[in-house]
Amino acid sequence: MSTTTHTIHNFSAGPCILPPSVLEQASAAVRELDGNGLSLIEISHRSKPFVAVMEEARDLVRSELNLPDHYEVLFLQGGASLGFLTTAMNFTPTDGSMDYAVTGTWAKKALKEARKMGAAQAITSSEDSGFNHIPELPGTSSASAVHITTNNTIYGTQYAGDPVVDKPIVADMSSDIFSRPIDIERYACIYAGAQKNMGPAGTVLYIYDKRQAGKTGRDLPSYLDLELHADKDSMFNTPPVFAIYTSMLTLRWLKGEGGVREMQQRNAAKAACIYGEIDRNPLFNGYAASGSRSVMNATFTAADDALTPLFLDACNAAGINGIKGHRSIGGFRASMYNALPLSSVEVLTDVMKEFERTHG
Amino acid sequence: MSTTTHTIHNFSAGPCILPPSVLEQASAAVRELDGNGLSLIEISHRSKPFVAVMEEARDLVRSELNLPDHYEVLFLQGGASLGFLTTAMNFTPTDGSMDYAVTGTWAKKALKEARKMGAAQAITSSEDSGFNHIPELPGTSSASAVHITTNNTIYGTQYAGDPVVDKPIVADMSSDIFSRPIDIERYACIYAGAQKNMGPAGTVLYIYDKRQAGKTGRDLPSYLDLELHADKDSMFNTPPVFAIYTSMLTLRWLKGEGGVREMQQRNAAKAACIYGEIDRNPLFNGYAASGSRSVMNATFTAADDALTPLFLDACNAAGINGIKGHRSIGGFRASMYNALPLSSVEVLTDVMKEFERTHG
Repeated sequence: MSTTTHTIHNFSAGPCILPPSVLEQASAAVRELDGNGLSLIEISHRSKPFVAVMEEARDLVRSELNLPDHYEVLFLQGGASLGFLTTAMNFTPTDGSMDYAVTGTWAKKALKEARKMGAAQAITSSEDSGFNHIPELPGTSSASAVHITTNNTIYGTQYAGDPVVDKPIVADMSSDIFSRPIDIERYACIYAGAQKNMGPAGTVLYIYDKRQAGKTGRDLPSYLDLELHADKDSMFNTPPVFAIYTSMLTLRWLKGEGGVREMQQRNAAKAACIYGEIDRNPLFNGYAASGSRSVMNATFTAADDALTPLFLDACNAAGINGIKGHRSIGGFRASMYNALPLSSVEVLTDVMKEFERTHG
Repeated sequence: MSTTTHTIHNFSAGPCILPPSVLEQASAAVRELDGNGLSLIEISHRSKPFVAVMEEARDLVRSELNLPDHYEVLFLQGGASLGFLTTAMNFTPTDGSMDYAVTGTWAKKALKEARKMGAAQAITSSEDSGFNHIPELPGTSSASAVHITTNNTIYGTQYAGDPVVDKPIVADMSSDIFSRPIDIERYACIYAGAQKNMGPAGTVLYIYDKRQAGKTGRDLPSYLDLELHADKDSMFNTPPVFAIYTSMLTLRWLKGEGGVREMQQRNAAKAACIYGEIDRNPLFNGYAASGSRSVMNATFTAADDALTPLFLDACNAAGINGIKGHRSIGGFRASMYNALPLSSVEVLTDVMKEFERTHG
């Protein structure tokens, strides 16, 4: 299998590349889980083997992100799309509001869901410039928290670090969680769909400060109540066992590779490689403003539109998968999540150089 | 693998037994999906191979349940637990209400969620008799729909068929969907967590009458709006690809085995086998009233409490898994979903007979 997965360089934006060893172990567990005589997906979620999986997954999140004890960790369902609603409901008091930094399509969607259930307002937006940069976060407002989208997959922009603001942050980290260490105390809540740096689609991670939850005065629907899920150890209802198991395997891999500090270095090296070539090569232009460039998703376009399909063909011939840009901005997008090796980025930059020789 | 899975007789209540061929194919797809060079869980959900999976899964639901064109099929997340809220929101008008038949723990939970967002009332309940039977559904009320739980896994009770009532039914069929043909036109909406007869935990099936949806006057949150999901062909956000793929495989298996009519016959044979032995054997008592007995989950107790742990030991020695009853009623529960062979039920009844000889 390793041969197969490595002949393709998977730059997909998500679902996306996972470590080959994780795919191997996840596949084996679907046949039989750790010598239990039953598949991972046919044992009870209340059985000892699966309860151990859930606890290891939650513990690995705690240890790899260095979470203090007052932070809770949950693996739920519904993706970040349901998270837009859940976070708004759990962190906006009935008489309060939340600020939103609108830095892309997903941030807009988060604000839209929040508006349906309470007071929420955009405090900044880069929409007028095609979301090509991360705008400054304004100072004091009366809101109880500020919501950000730390990495914007479509536009290839990312906050350079943990923002310094005068209120707790609620952050959608779907596409850059576990890519670097974080200053957790700045966050009231972090949520992230699994299907980038953590595992397969089908589970969403919530990390939240227990001291800041449950203060809204709202009577929440059960599935949207983070504290209820925490009371049940993330097993309020049947959890998505495969997605959680595979996320646990990816977190084990992360730990074994050296953790988020090592990932930060690797991701910086991959980003330097691709952005260096984008800036050097006269046939391509970067999309995101230089100070806002994402380490996870590099967006770029052909200097001449006519070259776009030809470059996609060249990538395809080299085994490069998922490089086509999102339809809203066109061009190309190289998603370089934790499991993507530098060698795949080098294959891409080699294709860009060769393309310059043949089409420049 | 077949050897391994068949040395254990898996009577788990869910997650539960799936066909060995489905486990084999799901395991292979986690390595590589149909010669695409990438794993099922690392390709884009917008790629042709996965869009084809989603469409085949939805089409199989339509064909195997013989759905008319005005019924929509969706694979979402959040389990039936989020479905309690979603169905109440999509089928209770702002100025209307929904009736609930309270036949067990899950039905009570459905009513609880519905009460949080609108008018909902219990019209019948068997709680006073320990939920040991399915009570009659009363006649006319002013409600716009009636909610039922077709099979009650914990208590081992089940509606004998599709109820005849004077209004559309909203049904939680989590534990008996695809176990028999249904008269679909009686239902405004059917929902079912996958982890019994359909696949692994992590996706929930919605089937609903498009003519009856979208009439509530509510401004629904996006993830809870069934019509929005339908507009996006069940891909409003990243779907749980593994759970949907494996459900598709199970539905292919179902079709190949002869469909829901064949399952109905097999399930009747398994039920006859276990209930025959429960009624014959003086060491055991059935829990559910005879007219309400479930074909999916047979609940029974030892005539003498002291025998309970001894019988569990005897089952364990015979490779019988998951037979311990739910803590709320104790005793034993034999869950006999579609993929459980009659031979496993015969192993169980042989153990019961032997137990009578040694402990009678």
